[in-house]
Amino acid sequence: MRKSNVITLLSDFGINDVYVGVMKGVIAQINSNLTIVDLTHQIPPQNIAAGRFCLMNAYAYFPAGTVHVAVVDPGVGSQRRSLAVEFSQGFLIGPDNGLLTGVLSQIPAIRAVELTNLNYWRSPQPSNTFHGRDIFAPVAAYLASGVPLLELGTEINPDSLVQLDIGQWEETATGVCGCVQYIDYFGNLVTNIPASYVQGKSWSVQIKGMTIGGCQTYSDVGVGEALALIGSHGWVEIAVNSGNAQAQLQIDWQDTLEVITH
Amino acid sequence: MRKSNVITLLSDFGINDVYVGVMKGVIAQINSNLTIVDLTHQIPPQNIAAGRFCLMNAYAYFPAGTVHVAVVDPGVGSQRRSLAVEFSQGFLIGPDNGLLTGVLSQIPAIRAVELTNLNYWRSPQPSNTFHGRDIFAPVAAYLASGVPLLELGTEINPDSLVQLDIGQWEETATGVCGCVQYIDYFGNLVTNIPASYVQGKSWSVQIKGMTIGGCQTYSDVGVGEALALIGSHGWVEIAVNSGNAQAQLQIDWQDTLEVITH
Amino acid sequence: MRKSNVITLLSDFGINDVYVGVMKGVIAQINSNLTIVDLTHQIPPQNIAAGRFCLMNAYAYFPAGTVHVAVVDPGVGSQRRSLAVEFSQGFLIGPDNGLLTGVLSQIPAIRAVELTNLNYWRSPQPSNTFHGRDIFAPVAAYLASGVPLLELGTEINPDSLVQLDIGQWEETATGVCGCVQYIDYFGNLVTNIPASYVQGKSWSVQIKGMTIGGCQTYSDVGVGEALALIGSHGWVEIAVNSGNAQAQLQIDWQDTLEVITH
Repeated sequence: MRKSNVITLLSDFGINDVYVGVMKGVIAQINSNLTIVDLTHQIPPQNIAAGRFCLMNAYAYFPAGTVHVAVVDPGVGSQRRSLAVEFSQGFLIGPDNGLLTGVLSQIPAIRAVELTNLNYWRSPQPSNTFHGRDIFAPVAAYLASGVPLLELGTEINPDSLVQLDIGQWEETATGVCGCVQYIDYFGNLVTNIPASYVQGKSWSVQIKGMTIGGCQTYSDVGVGEALALIGSHGWVEIAVNSGNAQAQLQIDWQDTLEVITH
Repeated sequence: MRKSNVITLLSDFGINDVYVGVMKGVIAQINSNLTIVDLTHQIPPQNIAAGRFCLMNAYAYFPAGTVHVAVVDPGVGSQRRSLAVEFSQGFLIGPDNGLLTGVLSQIPAIRAVELTNLNYWRSPQPSNTFHGRDIFAPVAAYLASGVPLLELGTEINPDSLVQLDIGQWEETATGVCGCVQYIDYFGNLVTNIPASYVQGKSWSVQIKGMTIGGCQTYSDVGVGEALALIGSHGWVEIAVNSGNAQAQLQIDWQDTLEVITH
Repeated sequence: MRKSNVITLLSDFGINDVYVGVMKGVIAQINSNLTIVDLTHQIPPQNIAAGRFCLMNAYAYFPAGTVHVAVVDPGVGSQRRSLAVEFSQGFLIGPDNGLLTGVLSQIPAIRAVELTNLNYWRSPQPSNTFHGRDIFAPVAAYLASGVPLLELGTEINPDSLVQLDIGQWEETATGVCGCVQYIDYFGNLVTNIPASYVQGKSWSVQIKGMTIGGCQTYSDVGVGEALALIGSHGWVEIAVNSGNAQAQLQIDWQDTLEVITH
């Protein structure tokens, strides 16, 4: 695939330290004409599922051939594999711990490589704690600069990638049961139930003894009132107009809910 | 006006989620050679006045022809208009809720357009919750890439833009009364009284029973002591040398004060 | 030295306000083809030592000729000097308060200049509170665009730079004593003891009555257990596998410790 000149970065590194800046420096040392876009570095520390969700909801908005680097990596320094994966819209680079598999649940991998070619690492002896700097960033810079995927290491079967167990949704007699898979900065509660299930129907959500009506947009209810709607990521969401649903409704990650269609 | 290759982004999206990164991806899909600068994404959620203030204090420092995108948009998905405005130093894009009018209180609009031309949206059916991604970001990318302003929609009268009621300052027998219009990350209290009122005079501030002397710079007082000075944005500010004035003086947004000149 | 097209920014400005965005605008007004990389803007307010540490751990990862701008500047507006320094890997710009001297403790200065040439400032009358915008950013843009260092002001003796008193480490009968010089976003405790002291040895750390074993990587201990290891910056660090060492072990900045080699 033709590469774009864009690399995205996603991590749980936060923004207090120079970790992210250093990764960008390593990339600029290899090719200072690449464009680097931060997806977020505020993934809750070591929360692979949240990182997986965010990457899955972002890749589609980037140019074809973009290289996406994701680092939420509690197993860094252990025997877990380092990966580069090609799919029809671009490339994914990161640890083999399920972080990349949200994207691949939507668009299958074309091919995958374990990053074993030390020529594309920052040094043959990487640190045990910061593969983002020592392996993933330089490999991404080389890949985005034209190095072929298969040069980066040993080809592996994409089916061998470590999967992550995330909550599933399932149909019930009255609707569909699921859970809260992500809570955003505004306190909006993103469920794991796809928008397609409610589109064109009359519907509501039952959660923790509350019934919340399905709406079109925030202002369909008064300020401070709860509503359910199709969120911008394409999932059923629960929100409060001009407020914080997580705090107001006392709902947390993984809480279960049922969508009822009428 | 000739465009620069710079787009700025301001929002209340925070940095935990991929919302901002996705807007940058959408821009890069249209033109990956544009330079994107974040003004801030930490506007307090739905605080249009704070977003208006920040945009007003930033635009002057950018190249002529810069496209400024601002999204603090509690009315997203309702009937509020989406705008692009040309002024002598560049362009403004955002919702019609007063967010853009701080800039226009300093430099009048040349012309304004309601964004109705679906050809420049990401899709003809935008989401009801994320016009930053679906309308504002792509329109900004096309505008910065050379599409004429009047191509983007229907021309409207700039005088018809929604205004925001913000606190005014007024002269008194002894000086001028105003209020705290913004509190920055350091806890510095930015009033709505222009620097021109105190320049070249001897002056002090009265607030909540305290009298705080007008100074030149932080180190005119001891560490931990309060002072008033002309802030870098051109307004009278109250600060504490090497400390946090908001916390130490227990002053909040909108609190009133009087500047006394001697 | 040949310049790269990269400028880095480090400050204690936080990300809530437009201060950092405004510095980038000022740079773009002078040269919109430069690449700007944020190291961090979350240095604890006025903590020169933390800023010094972060800059010292980041510069080596950038292209030769990069211009590093650092602003942690409680003395802004006083008589403290403004500096530009050339060293073998690039350039440093910032206040003369010790912020730049961490880098220079590793790689000596080639030459230094006090920024006195007003032609390269944003205006001859800078504000008293924001030299990042009015002096450091424009000077960095001109320097990165080819203006020679010695054009920027008066050459000064690099030995005259203000030094910062930071904790030293010293050998004891049983090992080496030092202190916690930095705590990162993950709660990892970075000591001031260089990795070279423990490399290839069997070792442990004693701190606040606890003994913590020297390891290779996080997963050498169970989840939630403490370990000591060589951190990615090249210092002895104390961490908790998948946890926060600062919170769990109740250790703070400047706390002392001893590394014992066996």
